Amino acid sequence: MDEFESIRTYFTSRFANQVQRSPQIAMGIGDDCAIISPPQSQSLVISTDTQVDGRHFPKGCAASIVAYRALGAAVSDLAAMGAEPLGFTLSLAIPALDKAWLEDFSLALAERADELGIPLIGGDTVKGELAVSITVLGAAPVGQALTRAGANPEDDLWVTGTLGDAAAGLSIAISEDSAGFVTETANALLLAAYQKPQPQLAFGQKLRGVATAAIDISDGLVADVGHLCRASQLCAEIWLDMLPMSQAILDFWGLTKARLAACSGGDDYQLCFTAPASCRDFFTGSQFSQPATRIGRLVHGAEKLVRVLDGDNELTVSEQGYNHFSISTSGIN
Amino acid sequence: MDEFESIRTYFTSRFANQVQRSPQIAMGIGDDCAIISPPQSQSLVISTDTQVDGRHFPKGCAASIVAYRALGAAVSDLAAMGAEPLGFTLSLAIPALDKAWLEDFSLALAERADELGIPLIGGDTVKGELAVSITVLGAAPVGQALTRAGANPEDDLWVTGTLGDAAAGLSIAISEDSAGFVTETANALLLAAYQKPQPQLAFGQKLRGVATAAIDISDGLVADVGHLCRASQLCAEIWLDMLPMSQAILDFWGLTKARLAACSGGDDYQLCFTAPASCRDFFTGSQFSQPATRIGRLVHGAEKLVRVLDGDNELTVSEQGYNHFSISTSGIN
Repeated sequence: MDEFESIRTYFTSRFANQVQRSPQIAMGIGDDCAIISPPQSQSLVISTDTQVDGRHFPKGCAASIVAYRALGAAVSDLAAMGAEPLGFTLSLAIPALDKAWLEDFSLALAERADELGIPLIGGDTVKGELAVSITVLGAAPVGQALTRAGANPEDDLWVTGTLGDAAAGLSIAISEDSAGFVTETANALLLAAYQKPQPQLAFGQKLRGVATAAIDISDGLVADVGHLCRASQLCAEIWLDMLPMSQAILDFWGLTKARLAACSGGDDYQLCFTAPASCRDFFTGSQFSQPATRIGRLVHGAEKLVRVLDGDNELTVSEQGYNHFSISTSGIN
Repeated sequence: MDEFESIRTYFTSRFANQVQRSPQIAMGIGDDCAIISPPQSQSLVISTDTQVDGRHFPKGCAASIVAYRALGAAVSDLAAMGAEPLGFTLSLAIPALDKAWLEDFSLALAERADELGIPLIGGDTVKGELAVSITVLGAAPVGQALTRAGANPEDDLWVTGTLGDAAAGLSIAISEDSAGFVTETANALLLAAYQKPQPQLAFGQKLRGVATAAIDISDGLVADVGHLCRASQLCAEIWLDMLPMSQAILDFWGLTKARLAACSGGDDYQLCFTAPASCRDFFTGSQFSQPATRIGRLVHGAEKLVRVLDGDNELTVSEQGYNHFSISTSGIN
């Protein structure tokens, strides 16, 4: 089977239905470019995210998990902009044309793309070290895409979901912490947080016109709040005792380690955003299946970009977040 | 230097001017996504192209050449659609944060992006085997983007530029064929064809509303005409004695080998297109700095998708083209 045939077999046919159902995709896979009819009066947003074997997922990771994680991470960037998905391209580097692997990968990718409402519209396969690079394209009404800039002093700082679960899930996946085993259900929840990230598309779209700034938490809360602060030219306080954590992670790691993971574990793919105090009722209202949690506030320039406060005490937490060049793959640093 | 800093240093600042000059880029590098205000009444086109060390360019290849080739190949897909460039994202996998390499790569990429009028609007860097994945975004008036489908029986088959030069250039670059050395000028021309491909953007845009189908020649003429034929559900005849070849390649390889390279050498990044006979004067007119060459015709379904004819004789030329999984990197197969 040559390169072109493998693309056709595993991707073109598998995604054909999704492309056909998308009125905005005039041409999907199979030409020099895909053709998209963008919705009227919308801005486009675009982002690229690459995951490499043994670095963004453990070596030997199941093909389906590689697919879930790569697409989830990329689509999370659309969620952070408050955008709706239009389509994505895939660049897949694989060491060999392994039929079973490609079968699993493409099936999982198609299933996940369907759930997230984002069709595959192009890409290529090359021979090389296993790496998945996904470029997502989305749309948001002109002027309403959320950015990291725009937060105001005294804005509240919010996060969606619970934090640190993916870091605990990774430690289970690589059997680093089997000592922490609690129950099948708790372990499954933590593993799923790592293996099948849930980008907060619906929540992000509801933030348009309400939140002043937003970012997704992929590098760890403190690191990503740092990015938001830098873009907004402000500083932030994070209140440690307000961090939302699942019962599973508390049971698994205990409070202290769970808090560390909540602060700086990677791969959560939750949204962190800022908004004025007048919006507090909105974010905890019934329009959200899972309400957001207020975890801190933005302040004028201080000595430190992000301060994590435990009552009156300040914790020392790395601002670096998950850094692929200097940190272990444990997801915590 | 961590990942974020390296991105800022080498890419954000270097491309800031280009982004500022592009009225359609509302937000470039530095947020979760770039934001683009697409031109009114235009379709968007998008394509991803990945080049891997030792496969799409020789190991040890200069960083600037890697940049030229990766961007040229990706932008060539926009040319094949008759599109105008809007922007591109870069996913760069590098084995280590090599400052000198990144400096050369980013400078060359910025220079080339400037020449081609396409700003860098996003991307990421990851640690891994050297690989450059570029996603290009472009625009064309609704309904006017050129595709591979649409050719009609008896349409003429045309190509831009000269063929095979890049294959000869690669053989010089990897010192495979130093015996073929002719003159400094000829060698420089062939090397440049390989090292700094010239995507035919202006030519592609002039084909809108005139050509019935188009494709860029990246895999080799016969292979890419095969793709066009498949999409148009027709077959093609290519006339060997009409293939446009540079004097440099004829001097370098002699007629027979030069013709083989013209038929199946990769990396030419010229356009191949079809049009009715009524358009012949148009393509050879003075609106093109270099006129196109008529090299064959489309015919109704025959036994073979693409026939290469030398007078009345048919040549056996592989239809596979440059196949990264089964063919050597010599660019000829």
